[in-house]
Amino acid sequence: MAESGRTPQARAILQQCLRARLQVRPAEGDATAQWVEVQRGLVIYVCFFKGADQDLLPRMVNTLLNVKLSETENGKHVSILDLPGNILIIPQATLGGKVKGRNMQYHSNSGKEEGLELYSQFVTLCEKQLAANDKCAEAGVVVEHGTYGNRQVLKLDTNGPYTHLIEF
Amino acid sequence: MAESGRTPQARAILQQCLRARLQVRPAEGDATAQWVEVQRGLVIYVCFFKGADQDLLPRMVNTLLNVKLSETENGKHVSILDLPGNILIIPQATLGGKVKGRNMQYHSNSGKEEGLELYSQFVTLCEKQLAANDKCAEAGVVVEHGTYGNRQVLKLDTNGPYTHLIEF
Repeated sequence: MAESGRTPQARAILQQCLRARLQVRPAEGDATAQWVEVQRGLVIYVCFFKGADQDLLPRMVNTLLNVKLSETENGKHVSILDLPGNILIIPQATLGGKVKGRNMQYHSNSGKEEGLELYSQFVTLCEKQLAANDKCAEAGVVVEHGTYGNRQVLKLDTNGPYTHLIEF
Repeated sequence: MAESGRTPQARAILQQCLRARLQVRPAEGDATAQWVEVQRGLVIYVCFFKGADQDLLPRMVNTLLNVKLSETENGKHVSILDLPGNILIIPQATLGGKVKGRNMQYHSNSGKEEGLELYSQFVTLCEKQLAANDKCAEAGVVVEHGTYGNRQVLKLDTNGPYTHLIEF
């Protein structure tokens, strides 16, 4: 985890969901909007900062998938791998904002190219870990994700969002 | 805002919503669940830390209601007071969590009694600011809120959550 006082390399907000739908392509002309959807699981909003590098990602994914932030039917807290549950990853550059007067500034965020690369690898690592987990593979849980740099229209249905902030 | 390196007194996560519903009493026996609901506006998840005091609240409410985190139909960013929009306040003690191994610890959070007091005053201040704002009063926008210490079952419908973290 990011030590107190150090600028973080990445910031994640986690919420548990019963169902979450994310628009990945808006309606355009005759084409209807496209959505990805997950049932019960974890929503991960993620933002990368300047100075973040790829070495960070395995540790980051390992923490996020193993920390006990999901509630079973019996009210016990387990990891998303142990639930087992689905994952929806939402790129959310706004999480890097700092208040300046009445505006938000995003000067600490990764550049667009590095951010996209880190985000893509983050998604791939999450997919791999889920696929490699017997319980998740057997239950058929999935990783869905939004598109870096796009608007993220989200509909979220929770049994208590149980919102957590984890920095790296 | 909290200076880098200093332990914050409060943490808020903000998301814009098209509609948000929060269960404030679960179904029990013959009684159905009770919900509060807001249309277009701002969801504020809030958590207070040890050492937070009431002097913090006016500055905190002033910042959260005046920072430009809401999007108009034309894509311009304005404050929730200028939108004008509704506010749903969700007490969210989990935001104070720190990862320790695979578990979250909440040692930095306000004690239950202080936390409840700060939360109640925070809600009251938001209500007062909204009521005192001509544009909000005229539009009939409202502040709704959850119950401190209860489970916060949430259904959220966004046009892009536009998630921001602001610490005080």
